[in-house]
Amino acid sequence: MQGDLLSLLNEQRSGFSLARPFYADPEVFAEDLRAIWQREWIFAASIAEFPKTGSYVTLQLGAYPVVVVRGADGVIRAFHNVCRHRGQRICSKPSGQAAKLVCPYHQWTYDPDGRLLWARDMGTDFDASKHGMKPVHCTQAAGMVFVCLAEEAPDFAAVQAEADRYAAPHGMADLKVAFQSRIVEEGNWKLVLENNRECYHCAGSHPSLCRTFSDDPDLVGADDSLSSPAGAAHVNRCEEAGLPSRYVIAPNDQWRLVRIPFVGEGVSYTMDGAAAAPRLPGMPFANAGSLLFFHYPNTWNHFLSDHVLNFRVLPISATQTEVVTTWLVHKDAVEGRDYDLKRLTEVWLATNDEDRRVVEENQIGVSSPAYEPGPYSAKQESGVIQFVDWYVRAMIAAQAPGGARLAAE
Amino acid sequence: MQGDLLSLLNEQRSGFSLARPFYADPEVFAEDLRAIWQREWIFAASIAEFPKTGSYVTLQLGAYPVVVVRGADGVIRAFHNVCRHRGQRICSKPSGQAAKLVCPYHQWTYDPDGRLLWARDMGTDFDASKHGMKPVHCTQAAGMVFVCLAEEAPDFAAVQAEADRYAAPHGMADLKVAFQSRIVEEGNWKLVLENNRECYHCAGSHPSLCRTFSDDPDLVGADDSLSSPAGAAHVNRCEEAGLPSRYVIAPNDQWRLVRIPFVGEGVSYTMDGAAAAPRLPGMPFANAGSLLFFHYPNTWNHFLSDHVLNFRVLPISATQTEVVTTWLVHKDAVEGRDYDLKRLTEVWLATNDEDRRVVEENQIGVSSPAYEPGPYSAKQESGVIQFVDWYVRAMIAAQAPGGARLAAE
Amino acid sequence: MQGDLLSLLNEQRSGFSLARPFYADPEVFAEDLRAIWQREWIFAASIAEFPKTGSYVTLQLGAYPVVVVRGADGVIRAFHNVCRHRGQRICSKPSGQAAKLVCPYHQWTYDPDGRLLWARDMGTDFDASKHGMKPVHCTQAAGMVFVCLAEEAPDFAAVQAEADRYAAPHGMADLKVAFQSRIVEEGNWKLVLENNRECYHCAGSHPSLCRTFSDDPDLVGADDSLSSPAGAAHVNRCEEAGLPSRYVIAPNDQWRLVRIPFVGEGVSYTMDGAAAAPRLPGMPFANAGSLLFFHYPNTWNHFLSDHVLNFRVLPISATQTEVVTTWLVHKDAVEGRDYDLKRLTEVWLATNDEDRRVVEENQIGVSSPAYEPGPYSAKQESGVIQFVDWYVRAMIAAQAPGGARLAAE
Ligand code: FES
Ligand code: FES
Ligand code: FES
Ligand SMILES: [Fe+3]
Ligand SMILES: [Fe+3]
Ligand SMILES: [Fe+3]
Repeated sequence: MQGDLLSLLNEQRSGFSLARPFYADPEVFAEDLRAIWQREWIFAASIAEFPKTGSYVTLQLGAYPVVVVRGADGVIRAFHNVCRHRGQRICSKPSGQAAKLVCPYHQWTYDPDGRLLWARDMGTDFDASKHGMKPVHCTQAAGMVFVCLAEEAPDFAAVQAEADRYAAPHGMADLKVAFQSRIVEEGNWKLVLENNRECYHCAGSHPSLCRTFSDDPDLVGADDSLSSPAGAAHVNRCEEAGLPSRYVIAPNDQWRLVRIPFVGEGVSYTMDGAAAAPRLPGMPFANAGSLLFFHYPNTWNHFLSDHVLNFRVLPISATQTEVVTTWLVHKDAVEGRDYDLKRLTEVWLATNDEDRRVVEENQIGVSSPAYEPGPYSAKQESGVIQFVDWYVRAMIAAQAPGGARLAAE
Repeated sequence: MQGDLLSLLNEQRSGFSLARPFYADPEVFAEDLRAIWQREWIFAASIAEFPKTGSYVTLQLGAYPVVVVRGADGVIRAFHNVCRHRGQRICSKPSGQAAKLVCPYHQWTYDPDGRLLWARDMGTDFDASKHGMKPVHCTQAAGMVFVCLAEEAPDFAAVQAEADRYAAPHGMADLKVAFQSRIVEEGNWKLVLENNRECYHCAGSHPSLCRTFSDDPDLVGADDSLSSPAGAAHVNRCEEAGLPSRYVIAPNDQWRLVRIPFVGEGVSYTMDGAAAAPRLPGMPFANAGSLLFFHYPNTWNHFLSDHVLNFRVLPISATQTEVVTTWLVHKDAVEGRDYDLKRLTEVWLATNDEDRRVVEENQIGVSSPAYEPGPYSAKQESGVIQFVDWYVRAMIAAQAPGGARLAAE
Repeated sequence: MQGDLLSLLNEQRSGFSLARPFYADPEVFAEDLRAIWQREWIFAASIAEFPKTGSYVTLQLGAYPVVVVRGADGVIRAFHNVCRHRGQRICSKPSGQAAKLVCPYHQWTYDPDGRLLWARDMGTDFDASKHGMKPVHCTQAAGMVFVCLAEEAPDFAAVQAEADRYAAPHGMADLKVAFQSRIVEEGNWKLVLENNRECYHCAGSHPSLCRTFSDDPDLVGADDSLSSPAGAAHVNRCEEAGLPSRYVIAPNDQWRLVRIPFVGEGVSYTMDGAAAAPRLPGMPFANAGSLLFFHYPNTWNHFLSDHVLNFRVLPISATQTEVVTTWLVHKDAVEGRDYDLKRLTEVWLATNDEDRRVVEENQIGVSSPAYEPGPYSAKQESGVIQFVDWYVRAMIAAQAPGGARLAAE
């Protein structure tokens, strides 16, 4: 397969959708896991999900169960969520809080920093210090926790510096989770990402999102938003007010930051465009549009003046993908008084479901042997072209000798 | 596998059920798709399902989504149901009607004749004429639409001529769909076909069907119905009245036509044997029995004096098969006044469900390594022997060099 | 794989949990079926499930459907549950009763002793005597029916002699089924067995079981219960009263018998420890604790003074296992008068469900590539070590030339 895969990758024509195996073949999917998902930094959870010592979030990364947990020292760490006794998954819930992590099988007890504290009747020869939870790389950017399964994690300094700077006015450390949704889409993860990276489909699919979110490709495509008059005006106004807003993209196209304006008078993703929650203290004005931040392969995000949206994508199989969406508001905002949950969430709950449907129909079509990669619109789908090109380059690089840094096993 | 498969095929003993792999092995199933399903003419829908321009029916043929649609010129055509942009399935419903076929993803718009009419922002270099829907062979016989995925479709002239002649008195162009059922059976498609080709099981399984349908093997088996006195009398009476009725079978046994009598005074598949709908205008009398028409691998049909039944079988996996049944009555008949839906459908809804259960139990048994092909009853199961022999011959032929005409990709 | 498997087996370190492939790999699972499940004696049903001529119980052993049925001569036999005509599963229900076994497809009719009695229209050449149901080895021990798919079944005399002697006072021939539960656990069968062979998890998982069942490893582990003062006192008291109770284990560790005391005043697995049903006539006193009997790979059992519990484990896939639990009471006991079903069953219904949950979480963890076999507690998990060692030895033996006695096909 590897040989075949390299041929397939080299035959891939830029500006065209991927060949069928990239969307449907279990062997390509296994290689996606190895070359991308067990190698790159993966967004796991917002820091708002770790309010206390022992706050934890779990995720399933291919066959790897992972737990991210905050220590008594305030440090957020990641571990293989596997007991060192007989391999029980230690934390089974999507998230929770516990002073110690106690294995539900035989109560081996771990400190949130990973050390094994207690194991009953293991005899005098047993060395607890050799049976701590196995660590997984863990870091943060823009108030978001990322993990990496690779033995040696890729350099993350550049994205951290920029993302932290752009997100700073939103005060991520002072936010709380207002709501979280979790859906499974019956489609390959790359179809989910492609769908996100264009707004060619927005007018036809997203009536409520389009009330506030512009589908102008000059704003939301691969290019600098300064190329759009509205985009340039917004960036300039925001930068003058001290909000980092200018389009910035990684040299390898893996991540991008830019602040774009909403349609008309809109200030938030609501049905009427008005705010959904109290203004975040660091934001100079409500009409700040949305700071967009994507990081491949698994997250895109919207930072608004009144709330923040984190999206986490995780592959389940060649044709199944989990999407978790988290709505964050200021920690002092009180539900019912300061914000209404329905009003806060309805636009993106609907949008996610609309996207799920197109992704699922896309999967059925690209699975046909009669499917043939078609041309992307250079005008409307520049972001998709950029994502697909990144994917192909990353996969080709991983096929090189030494290119396959193994995930920690 | 191919080598092994050829051995298995050659070892198959006529008069005995197939070896276990033919019913249970995913690799044999893949070869069934290649050698049979993507090569032969497959029944897709009745012409009654296309009353208007833009009326369409979809079907899933292995990994291929296909759409059959009526053009403004009245011609019914078939296409790969896959958008030429990014591969979206264009029509997602089992059937529907639309003036143009609009892709739900980015609204590329196709004429029902397959031409791409409109694609937004694709730039000046884009040649719409090169991005029409990909055609699939499509033809008709006996008012039934057949499609074929092969590059070169098998000759269909003989069956068309005969089936059209036999079905003519039933006036297929003047019928409408009264009801359609769709079930999934947890069994290999060949078990579904074998079940259909004998009435050895009818007395034990089909109490309501047996009120009107004879299980006399001389009538419903592989042989000419003239060998049965009742069969001969019926054929003669019908032929004298101008109804083509005499047993006719393809030289390769792939299809057969014959008109057989009902039990006693029965004229329709109802609990009391009386008609379920107004007599079709072209039929000289009610007591015309049933014109039976099968075409391998995927359809059997009953043409009665008051209604017509089309059965469509499609394989889903080695152990799953979809069966769609369509009840057709004269287009002027009014439900509630001229026919009662329960009365029209109850016998075959029950019969289908009874057959589903035996097929599913058959699948469990033949999946046992202890299963050993058993002898068919020459008297009761001549039709099964004929089907199995056709299948084995068709599979052997497809293993020959050049025998594997590829499906259009 | 075989070569790899042998290496994996030889690398297995005693005292440590198995390597990941043993719990998660479909190829190892296929070898488990071949080397263990289609070769060893497998517990099928209690003799209480065969009260009459034609009483039958079915089970699915890998791909093999099997039926166990009592003949007119009172003999309980096992057969491949596959019709010799076209392979229908003959008996589709988990259990039932019928004077003759009639195939539901075309009514071929078999005597409960396996002979084909009647087959319609099979012609004069047909030899019914060659088309009886194919036999499966069948025998009994401790009032429990065991089957074996191997061509030549392993010697069973030793376990039969001992188990019959130990179980005799419980009068298995005079019991009836009070209740039966059937659950599917999403975990490998070995995780189910490991879970059963230790009580290290009991305090944390089984609040209701722990009211009466001791988690003292000296009582319920791999060693002779005489090593525990309470165990020794109980054995001595019971043996003096004529109840075989002393710890006895097979030379190859495949089975074990021992009678252990309940906690405190307990006499049965009830919430208050009091009896759940009338005392079995052969038991000299109520306070007889529980006679434990396991036989690898698929059964553990509890024989009490008032009822008997049989557990049957059957693998479905690498990560799915069926567990059937049967509660037996004296045949003259009347529900509602002599015993209350909720009271009789609530402790083990809860315990089974608690074990299901830990097994399922165990499966998720051991499926991680980051899982590494961990050390068993020599004190608490001696029974698990013994089971795993038996498994590894049995698998290694089956890899030897001639070690793979094929299942009857
Ligand atoms: S598996 Fe975690 S304590 Fe035993
Ligand atoms: S996939 Fe059909 S229009 Fe884009
Ligand atoms: S399959 Fe059993 S009688 Fe036909
Ligand atoms: Fe979208
Ligand atoms: Fe039938
Ligand atoms: Fe337990």
